Order: sequence, then C-alpha cells, then structure tokens
Amino acid sequence: MKILITGFEPFGGESVNPAYEAVKLLPDMAGDIQIVKMEIPTVFGEAGKVVETGILQHQPDAVICVGQAGRRADIGVERVAINLAEASIPDNAGNQPMDVKVQEDGDTAYFATIPVKAMVKNIKDHGIPASISYTAGTYVCNSVMYDLLYLIDRKYPSIRGGFIHVPYATEQGVGKPVGTATMELSTISKALLYALEAVAGEDKN
Amino acid sequence: MKILITGFEPFGGESVNPAYEAVKLLPDMAGDIQIVKMEIPTVFGEAGKVVETGILQHQPDAVICVGQAGRRADIGVERVAINLAEASIPDNAGNQPMDVKVQEDGDTAYFATIPVKAMVKNIKDHGIPASISYTAGTYVCNSVMYDLLYLIDRKYPSIRGGFIHVPYATEQGVGKPVGTATMELSTISKALLYALEAVAGEDKN
Amino acid sequence: MKILITGFEPFGGESVNPAYEAVKLLPDMAGDIQIVKMEIPTVFGEAGKVVETGILQHQPDAVICVGQAGRRADIGVERVAINLAEASIPDNAGNQPMDVKVQEDGDTAYFATIPVKAMVKNIKDHGIPASISYTAGTYVCNSVMYDLLYLIDRKYPSIRGGFIHVPYATEQGVGKPVGTATMELSTISKALLYALEAVAGEDKN
Amino acid sequence: MKILITGFEPFGGESVNPAYEAVKLLPDMAGDIQIVKMEIPTVFGEAGKVVETGILQHQPDAVICVGQAGRRADIGVERVAINLAEASIPDNAGNQPMDVKVQEDGDTAYFATIPVKAMVKNIKDHGIPASISYTAGTYVCNSVMYDLLYLIDRKYPSIRGGFIHVPYATEQGVGKPVGTATMELSTISKALLYALEAVAGEDKN
Repeated sequence: MKILITGFEPFGGESVNPAYEAVKLLPDMAGDIQIVKMEIPTVFGEAGKVVETGILQHQPDAVICVGQAGRRADIGVERVAINLAEASIPDNAGNQPMDVKVQEDGDTAYFATIPVKAMVKNIKDHGIPASISYTAGTYVCNSVMYDLLYLIDRKYPSIRGGFIHVPYATEQGVGKPVGTATMELSTISKALLYALEAVAGEDKN
Repeated sequence: MKILITGFEPFGGESVNPAYEAVKLLPDMAGDIQIVKMEIPTVFGEAGKVVETGILQHQPDAVICVGQAGRRADIGVERVAINLAEASIPDNAGNQPMDVKVQEDGDTAYFATIPVKAMVKNIKDHGIPASISYTAGTYVCNSVMYDLLYLIDRKYPSIRGGFIHVPYATEQGVGKPVGTATMELSTISKALLYALEAVAGEDKN
Repeated sequence: MKILITGFEPFGGESVNPAYEAVKLLPDMAGDIQIVKMEIPTVFGEAGKVVETGILQHQPDAVICVGQAGRRADIGVERVAINLAEASIPDNAGNQPMDVKVQEDGDTAYFATIPVKAMVKNIKDHGIPASISYTAGTYVCNSVMYDLLYLIDRKYPSIRGGFIHVPYATEQGVGKPVGTATMELSTISKALLYALEAVAGEDKN
Repeated sequence: MKILITGFEPFGGESVNPAYEAVKLLPDMAGDIQIVKMEIPTVFGEAGKVVETGILQHQPDAVICVGQAGRRADIGVERVAINLAEASIPDNAGNQPMDVKVQEDGDTAYFATIPVKAMVKNIKDHGIPASISYTAGTYVCNSVMYDLLYLIDRKYPSIRGGFIHVPYATEQGVGKPVGTATMELSTISKALLYALEAVAGEDKN
C-alpha cells in the first residue's frame, strides 16, 4: 500500500507549518505502508494542481492532505469538503477569494473517502486526542481537500482521499494569546502515522 | 543549590496527575541544581504538612509545588496564594471546604517568592508556552501554595517558594470535550526544568 | 412577501429552546413581510415532514428554520447542510443515528438559498454579533436544514430556504459552566427580524 | 441605605464602557436603597482618588466599583484585590506599570467586604448568569478595588466595599472575534441592581 501525504508550507505570518513539519517526521515505510511525503503551496488552486502532479508521479492508493487549524486542540479528521472558497487573509500568492466556487462544475460537497471513524479511533487508542470534524473551513485547506476529492471523483476513482487538521506546534504557542492550545510535532506526527495505519488496515479488510 | 519540587497525586477521577508524572521525569541533578522530588496528597491541610516534612528532611533552598489546571493550555507560574479554601469537588480525603480560611492567623494572601517573571521567560525562551497566573484558584493547589508561603513567612524565611500549574497530559485529553488543551508530559517536565534553572540563576545573581 | 419561520421544541434536558421562544416574539407583520411561526419537533425526519406541512399550508416565499447552538456566542447564519446524520445524544423520539444519510437519494450537501451575507450584515448593522457558519453540525438542526433544501431542490424551487443558529438564552446560562455565552431572547428575536428583512430586501432587488 | 456605585470611562480603544453604561441605567432609588452613580477615570491611582472624593461627598454605607472584563460571559463578583499593578496596555493617562505595588504600605491583598455569595445567588435567582471570581486581574480594575479596600481598612471601617466585573455589551461584540461573549446593557444593569439588593439585604440581617 502506498500513501501520498502532503503538508502545507507556512502561511499567515507563521514561520513554520506544523502540518508539513509533522509529515516530514514520518518514516518512509511503516509496516507494509509506503509513505510518500510532499510539501504543497498554500495557494488556492495551485495546491490541488501540485497534489495531482503527486498522484501522477507516485500512483498512490490513498492521498491525505494535512493542514494547520490554529484554534483546535486535537487532531481533526475532516469528513466533508465544500465547493466554496472564502478567505479572511490572502493566500501565499495574494489571492483572497470571497464567495467563489472551488470548481465551477463540481458538486456542492464531497465526503472524505478515507475511513475517518477508524482513523480517529486508532489515534485515540494510542492516547492522542482526536475527533471527526464536519467543516474544513473555506480557506486553502478546504479548497485542496475539495480539489482532491473532485479529482478522485472525476479521474482517479480507485484512490481514497481525505484531509487532517492539526493544532499549532508547541513552539508556535509562545507569543500567542494565553489559552491557545498546542501539540508537540512528534505527537502530531505519531497521530498521522496511526491515521495512516487505519487507512491501510481498512483497506485490507 | 537544592530545590524541593512536589507533585500531587491524582484527584477528581483522573487516573494520573500530570504534575507528579512530570516531576518524576526530572533528573536528580541539573547543572549544579540538586532536585528532590516528592509526591504529596491532594488533601487540604495534609498537603502542607507533607511539604513541611520535606523541608525539614531535605533543607532545600527553594520549594516549588506543581499541580494540574485542567482548563489551561500553557504552563502557569502562580504569583499569589489567597487565604481561602473553597472546593467544588471533595479532596481525596472527602473534605469539601466552603468559604474557610487556609490558616486562621495567616495574611489575606502571600506573593510567591520565586522569580516568576524570569521563570516564565526562561520557559518561553525554550519554545514552551507559559505565562504568569494571578489566581491559583481556591482548591488544594492554592491551599498548599498558601501553606508553603505561610510556613516560609513564619518559620523558614531563607527558603524561596511558589507554585506552577500545568495543563492536562496529552493522554488525558482522550475522552475529554473537543477543545480541551493538553501538553506532552515530557514537554511539561522540560518546562519545569527551565523554571528551576531560572530560580537557581536568579539566586546566583 | 410571506416567510415561514420555525423553531425547535426543547431537547437535551433543557426546559426551553431559545429558538422557538425567540420566534414566538416576532411580530406577525414587519413592513410588508408576513411572518408565519411554527414549532417543530426535535426529531430526525419528523422535523422535515412538519416543515413540508407548513410549506403546503402557508405557501411561503421563504422558509427559515431556527435552532439552538449551545456553544456559540453570536447569531450563526448557516451556509450549508450535509447529507449526514450523527447524534451524540438521542433526539426527542429516542433516535440516535450514526453515520446515516439524511436522504438516501440526496446530494452530498446543499447550500442555503437565502442571502446569508446580507442577513449577517443587516444583523451586525443593528448592533448584534453575527457570522456565517459553515457547519450546522450533524444533529437535527443540520438534518432539517438538509430536508428543507432537498425539498426545495426537488419540489419547491421557487422557495428560498436556510437555517439560523442562536446562542443559549440568558436564563439558560445559570447553572452552566462559567464561560458559557448567552444572549437575551429579545435580542435574538430582533436579530431574526433583521435577518428576515434582509431576505425580503434581497427579494425586492 | 446608601450605596455608591462607580463605572469606568471607556479604555483600550472601546468607544463605550459597559460598566458605566449599565450603572447609568440604574434607578436612583430601589426600595429603600439610595443609589449614587459616579463615572471614574481608567487611570491607575486617579481612580481610587476619585472614589475617595465620592466617599467624602456622599457618605455611603457601601461602595461597589464596576468594570469591564472582555473575556467573561457572566457577571463576576470579585472576592479579592491584590497589591500588584501590571498593565499590558497603557491606561487612559498613558501609565503602564509593571510589577509595581498599588499601595506601598498596603497588605498583600484585601478580601471584598460585600457579601459576594449572596450577591451571586440573588443575580442567578433572577435568571442572569453570575459567579464569584478570584482574580480581578492586575489592571486598573484590580487597582481601584484594592485602593477602595485599603481606604476602608485604614480610614472608613464602617463602609463595605467590593468590585463587579461585567461582560462586553452586545453592541461591542460586533467586529470582535467569533466566540466573544456579550450581555445586554439592560441585563447587566438588572444584575447590578440584584447585587445591590443583596448588599442591602445582608445589611438588614
């Protein structure tokens, strides 16, 4: 089983993005799971194109994109992506869409096709807080999740796809308002590995 | 320099207390700081008595008590303890004081005599979120901090004393409401060590 | 212009539901808007059926369902309903669906067809906090919003539809954890009126 | 019975302060309670001097200062003021003290001498969320509460004194981050009246 896992480059004034930092800490092989890691741009539209390049190059069985959700305290496995782009801050190319479709001819929404319940369960069974999330927002995270599921729906039906949101890394919490939740990068990375195990395990059954 | 650092036993239905778990992970020596670790009961009055036993036995230069603050996201170095005990849940001996003084003849409050600003700064300089807190609540945490500072004021004026609140450990977050902040025990323990360094450093200057 | 506005009966152990209480405070006429109010059951499936009964009986130009969102501090105008029913507590008929579709043959999601941006703007312009929400959850609120938009899509294309989430009423905050946000019923009701004005105004343009 | 109640002028970039706005809505007489209202400056030191002027002029039986606590959702009756001034933003005269005593020769802290439990109970009994707070912070609110209790301790022992924190007014919530709790000014004002009733009632018993 081969899984392509992506993480965003930093955005919004942060110097690191815990998503890609945690992805980088993953091993290349975990049991019989081959893990291919890729950094993608925090840019509407571009992110999805880079993901498709990765799909074509690596022919994965599943694709999981990972992004930062600064206001969350746990690992959030996303259930649904919606066909809507709205940005309260510009992306890394200066785009700031408002009330725009991600794909003109796409469905209103797509559900993740990875086993979100099993993923959350496996992460929690290993002692790391996690939950299903029912909104990936309307920024580049939702946009690339939508693009991925749209691509799968139209062109790559044998691939499973989804998205995971992760909290700020511990270091990022310094200087943020008191009360801002954080998680160690090593813990986030372990959680991602448990998520991948669940994807691979489901696939076997 | 010898520092006595204490952590509470579990309470409130939790099976572990991140305070003592993190204390246990500390080394016995850090530079020229000798670290003496002690578990104390989560019981009003008793906690302070056990702390005094530790003072008599170990003759420390400073005493720092550590407790869990489930609703915090960062390391909270407490600035003040107040002469008031109020419990919304019973302590581990079944006591549930309401509107009671910690010490009949004590001051209304005592400020910590450890260098809280330097401690917070050193923790943050090492990439771990921390802040000064101006309330240790009214449960056993505040009570033992008050008892410690009362003892120092009356009987052990050469000792410096204070209290540190720590978040839930990561594992404790599983099963708690989504949004509950946590921190790795190893990170909490590192933060405690940076706090001790600041106490020792201040002492040298 | 005739608008049908519904509020749920109490659920989850609450003795009142601020949604219907606020709906009841609305006038029957506001300018040239005729307001028809209806209480609907907090029951998966049934809620949507009662809404359709209201549509058939009153032939409204728009239908807005209103529900309580206990963890919100402002008026939340929902943007999208998803084809998923998951309940962490039973509804008022004892149903507790998990990972079930709202409508077997429905789309993955429907966007609200009321002018959510104009509604939020008009509420805020009158000094009441409001925002667009991108998840109505997976409980009966999302379910009835989905049912409404499904009905509109399939059978009543000339009707506009959507959903508004409101905070706890002030009285409900007594006894809840410190930090629980609330809003006066009279304020919630005014916000609903400003929302209806925006729906009617958009219709004129 | 005569009660002097004060509210701060706006600060921190806000155009109104819900504290004084709510105070202004109070009647001049409530049963046999004579209510004297006074606006005080949001300035360290000055606030306390103006309060003393009010004491000398009006000879009240009790003094209650009221301030805004932007991050709270309920009415917070303060239990204790500490001898510490630390400001993260300048006050209205540009002062920004850090680690400074409020009164050089004052106690470490003073407890409120108004009946905080009875006040919270009476507010809640009337359907408005309230709780005892154990920290008034370290800004001008804590400072004036400290000054008041210091004055009472040293010079006016027959007067009772304390402090109440109130949330943002509803209008202030517009433009603030989603999730910011607010309360109607009329509700805040009612809560203050119920608090005064409890002060007067306690006095009779």
